[in-house]
Amino acid sequence: MKVNKLEKFNIKKIDGGICAPVGFLAAGIYCGLRKNKEKKDLALIYSETVCNAAALYTSNKVKADPIYVTMDHIKDGNAKAVIVNSGNANACAPKGKENAIRMAESAAKALGIEKKDVIVASTGVIGVPLDIEVIESNIPMLSNILSRKGSSDAAEAIMTTDTYKKETAVSFELHGKEVKIGGISKGSGMIHPNMGTTLSFITSDVNIDGAILDKIWRYCVDRTFNRISIDGDTSTNDMACIMVNGLANNPMISDESDEGYEVFLAALMKVCTHLARELARDGEGSTRLISCTVYNASDEDKAGIIAKSVISSSLTKAALHGGDANWGRILCSAGYSGVDFDYRKVDIAFRSAKGEIMVCKNGRGLLFDENQASLILSTEETCVLINLKEGNESATAWGCDLTCEYVNINGSYRS
Amino acid sequence: MKVNKLEKFNIKKIDGGICAPVGFLAAGIYCGLRKNKEKKDLALIYSETVCNAAALYTSNKVKADPIYVTMDHIKDGNAKAVIVNSGNANACAPKGKENAIRMAESAAKALGIEKKDVIVASTGVIGVPLDIEVIESNIPMLSNILSRKGSSDAAEAIMTTDTYKKETAVSFELHGKEVKIGGISKGSGMIHPNMGTTLSFITSDVNIDGAILDKIWRYCVDRTFNRISIDGDTSTNDMACIMVNGLANNPMISDESDEGYEVFLAALMKVCTHLARELARDGEGSTRLISCTVYNASDEDKAGIIAKSVISSSLTKAALHGGDANWGRILCSAGYSGVDFDYRKVDIAFRSAKGEIMVCKNGRGLLFDENQASLILSTEETCVLINLKEGNESATAWGCDLTCEYVNINGSYRS
Repeated sequence: MKVNKLEKFNIKKIDGGICAPVGFLAAGIYCGLRKNKEKKDLALIYSETVCNAAALYTSNKVKADPIYVTMDHIKDGNAKAVIVNSGNANACAPKGKENAIRMAESAAKALGIEKKDVIVASTGVIGVPLDIEVIESNIPMLSNILSRKGSSDAAEAIMTTDTYKKETAVSFELHGKEVKIGGISKGSGMIHPNMGTTLSFITSDVNIDGAILDKIWRYCVDRTFNRISIDGDTSTNDMACIMVNGLANNPMISDESDEGYEVFLAALMKVCTHLARELARDGEGSTRLISCTVYNASDEDKAGIIAKSVISSSLTKAALHGGDANWGRILCSAGYSGVDFDYRKVDIAFRSAKGEIMVCKNGRGLLFDENQASLILSTEETCVLINLKEGNESATAWGCDLTCEYVNINGSYRS
Repeated sequence: MKVNKLEKFNIKKIDGGICAPVGFLAAGIYCGLRKNKEKKDLALIYSETVCNAAALYTSNKVKADPIYVTMDHIKDGNAKAVIVNSGNANACAPKGKENAIRMAESAAKALGIEKKDVIVASTGVIGVPLDIEVIESNIPMLSNILSRKGSSDAAEAIMTTDTYKKETAVSFELHGKEVKIGGISKGSGMIHPNMGTTLSFITSDVNIDGAILDKIWRYCVDRTFNRISIDGDTSTNDMACIMVNGLANNPMISDESDEGYEVFLAALMKVCTHLARELARDGEGSTRLISCTVYNASDEDKAGIIAKSVISSSLTKAALHGGDANWGRILCSAGYSGVDFDYRKVDIAFRSAKGEIMVCKNGRGLLFDENQASLILSTEETCVLINLKEGNESATAWGCDLTCEYVNINGSYRS
C-alpha cells in the first residue's frame, strides 16, 4: 500500500472544508462552556445519508468518557453525525459517561436520527464536570443552522489554544465522477491549560466498502496524525474519525486492486498530511514547523520511528528554536529511538526555503559555514534530512520548536 | 533484594566524597579544553590497590568512543584509575577512538599502571575533535597532585552546565570494620549547549566479590540514576561506574545471604539516591526538584515506569513550574506510560514542606482549596503521590520543572 503515485493523480485543493463533499452539513456556535464568549465551543457535523465511518483513538490507558461512547456507537461501522465540544474534556469528571451519552441523545433527537449514529467528542480541561444542560439546550438551535457553509464555524468551535483554524478539502476524478474529501482538525490547547488533545474529522462523498475504509484510515493516520508531536504528551481525548457517504456515486471501491483505491488513498493522504502539518506548525508556543525526513532506510516503520524521535527531542526543539545547527542532538535522538542502525553511515543535512547544508557525513561532523546554517534555520519551516544509507524506504514526521511561550502557556493557573 | 532495612543500619553521612574510602586519591584541574578558564575540565581518580569495578553505560545506539574503550578495559572486572574530561564529549568526532585510547595510555603511563586498568569518560559537545595534546601534556601534572582531599576538584572538573558540584560519602560498620562509600556525579550540561550527559563515579573500600558487585550495581543504578529525567534525551556519553578496593578489610561479601550484603546495598542506595536527587534538582534551567512516588502497585517495575513517565511529562513539568495543581496531566502521563492499571482506583496528592493535599480520588477530581495547593507547590521540592490501590510495591522517580531558562540555555548557539 504505497503512495508513490501522488503526482500522477490530478488532486486539486478546493474550498469548503468538511462540507465540500456532497451531502455534508456543519455548524459551530458558542453555547456557554467557555468563559471567553469570543470563541465558539460546540460543533455539529451531519451527513444527509448514512456513512461508513472509521475512528482511531488515543492509546492512553486513561480515556475520556466520550471515547468509550463513540467506540460503542461506531462498532457497526456506521454514523450520520458528530457532536463535539471544546472547553471541557469530559475526562475523569463526575457523570462523564452519562453526560457523553446525553450529548449523543440530544443530537440524535434534534436531527431525527438514532443515537447510535452519533459520534461524540470533547476537548478541554480534565476532571471538571461537564455542563451538560447548556449543551442540551443549545443543540436544537445548532442543528437548525446546519449548512453547506458551516465548516469554518465547526473548525473554530473545536479549537482550544489553537491560534488559527485547520480545515482543508480536495477533489479528484474517479471513473468520470468527481469525488471530494474534506477535513478539520484541532491542535494542542486549553481554555484552562491542558493537554495537547488532537481531534480530526474527515468527510468524503466517496463510495467505498467499510472494511477497506478501516484499513486505509489506519494506514493514513499512522503516517500523518501519528507522525506529529508537540510535547510528547498523549492526551486522554485524541480522536481521528472519517465518515464517507458514497454520494459521489463512483463505482464502489471494494478491493485494494480497484483503480479508485490508489487515488482515494493519495487524496486522503494529502488532506491528512496538510492537517497534520498545520497541527505541528501551530503547536503551543511554536514559532516554526520542523519536519524530519529519514530516507534510504531498510524499512518505513523504522524511518518513521527515528523521524518521530528527532522531532520529539526537547533538546533538538530548543536548539532549532535558537537557530542552532546542533546536529549532535539530532544524531543522539535518532540513537535513543529504540531502532537499530549504523550511525557510522549516517549523513545529516538541514533544508529550508533559504537553502540546504550538510553538517554530518558518515556519523562524523563536517566543518560547515555556521552563518549559512543559521540563515537556513532562521525560517518558518525547517527540514532535517537523515540519510541512513541502508535501503530504499523513507518517512517524515512533523513537530515544532520549544519556546518560552510553551512554558508560559502551560505554567499558568488553570483558572 | 529489597531495601527495607535502611533505617536499622547506622549509616552516617561523612565528608571526603570519593576520597573518603581508604586508598582513593583524586585531582581536578583546568587543562585548556574549555574556553572558560574558571572551570576545571580534567579529573583523575586513583586507587592505591587494584579494584573490582562495574560500569553501566548509555543505551543510546550512538555511543561516544570513550564508552567503547572503557567497555574493553573493564571487561576483566578490574580497574585502578578513571580519567575524565569535560568540555568535549569525544562523540562522533574524528579520531575519537584513537584519542580515547591515548587518554587511557597517558594516565597509565603517569600512574605506572596498565592501560587496561584505566576507565575513560568524556562529556561536552558532540562532533568536535578532542584536543588530545592538551590532555596528554597535563596528565603528568594532574597525577602529581592526586590527594586524599581531591574529591571536590574532581567533582568540579566533570561539571558542564551544572550549577554546583555533586559529591557525597557515607560510612557504616561491618563485622567491626568501618566501611566507606563515596561518589561524585555531573548533570545536564554544556560548554556549548549539549545533551544532558550524566557521569557518576562511586568509590568504596568495601571487600566484595566482583560478581555480587555487578549485580548490586545494576540493581542500584536502575533505582536511582535510571529513575531521573531532565528532558527525556538519553545522551551518547552516560556512564555510571563503581570501584571497590577492599581496603576496609571486612570479611568478603560473596553471597546475597552474607550479613554485609544488605547494609552495603542500603548504604550504596543512600549514596546514589542522594546524587540522583541532586542531578534532578540541578537540571538545566530548573527551579525545583519534583519527585513522584507511586505506591500500592502490584509490582515495583510498574510503579517505577509510571513514576518516571510522570516526572518526564513536559506538560506536568511546565504546570508544576507555574505552581499549577493540574493533576489531570499527571493522571494522563501515568496513562500513556505503557503499563496497565485501573485509573478508576487512583488517588493523587501533592506533598511538600508546606503540607499535603489530595486532588483526585478514585480517578475523579476532588474539589480542593486552590490557594492551599499553590502554597504546597510553591516550594523548592514537591512530591507527587500516586496511590494505585492494587498491591504493596512502590517506586520513586525524580525530575525538575520545565522553564524558560531551559529553552534559553539550549536555544543559544554552540559557539
